[in-house]
Amino acid sequence: MKQLNSEQKYIDKILKIGMKLPEDVKNVESKVLISLLRKRLRMTQTVLAKKLGISQAYMAKIESGKITPSLSILAKIFEIMKCSFSIILIPEIMPDELLKKQALKAAKQNLKYIAGTMSLEDQLPKEQNMQDLLIEEQNRLLKSNTSKIWEINND
Amino acid sequence: MKQLNSEQKYIDKILKIGMKLPEDVKNVESKVLISLLRKRLRMTQTVLAKKLGISQAYMAKIESGKITPSLSILAKIFEIMKCSFSIILIPEIMPDELLKKQALKAAKQNLKYIAGTMSLEDQLPKEQNMQDLLIEEQNRLLKSNTSKIWEINND
Repeated sequence: MKQLNSEQKYIDKILKIGMKLPEDVKNVESKVLISLLRKRLRMTQTVLAKKLGISQAYMAKIESGKITPSLSILAKIFEIMKCSFSIILIPEIMPDELLKKQALKAAKQNLKYIAGTMSLEDQLPKEQNMQDLLIEEQNRLLKSNTSKIWEINND
Repeated sequence: MKQLNSEQKYIDKILKIGMKLPEDVKNVESKVLISLLRKRLRMTQTVLAKKLGISQAYMAKIESGKITPSLSILAKIFEIMKCSFSIILIPEIMPDELLKKQALKAAKQNLKYIAGTMSLEDQLPKEQNMQDLLIEEQNRLLKSNTSKIWEINND
């Protein structure tokens, strides 16, 4: 892998924070956060709704999940409760691993294509050679920094 | 302050995580996260848009901030890039401190109201006594677990 630039290091830093979040804090729904924080601060739905300039019925729908508020409404709700918020990404796997995985998929497809275009009199490479070619193609794709790894079928 | 129940402890845990986030990770806009992660994974706007079933032009508008995606669209965008996300609250001050502050505001208003209803022949309490009364009223409001602390004017 190449040396990461500052933007790449920054997003990796965010992803690492997300990976390390306690399990019971990951993927908490916004409606739960609103309800828990509101009760923690002893605010009634009526008071919170009034400060927002909406009806208590609408506030109840937000907390029950019947209405999903936009990010800007969400920001206003939390602002009343003296909070801002941050979106923390939680990656299944870190970017370098994902890139390797995706490059391998693309490499397989490229080799299949090459095999498909070979005429019958050409001999197909043996199993072991195919494996070497695959790794070679994967590394070539990773080094070439190409976005083509995502442009494959059946992804 | 009273002993916290499990819901109160849980939201405080989330708030503490938010408070401890590195400064450069707090309040990052979603458009920035999308753009940085997409580039990190070497995806073009076109490929990401195609996987989402939207046009590249629309994707460009999301990344430039001209369009703010809903939370469900955001979830889909990050899912394609193999991430989920969590909303982490970042409190200005922790709940117990906020409750104390708000109870003091409400106590001030309650005492002003009492002073206002006193007839002229009644003697107003002295400065020191007023301060004691204020703290007493603040503690009463905190102990009584009332939501009335938020129902004051000029908040």
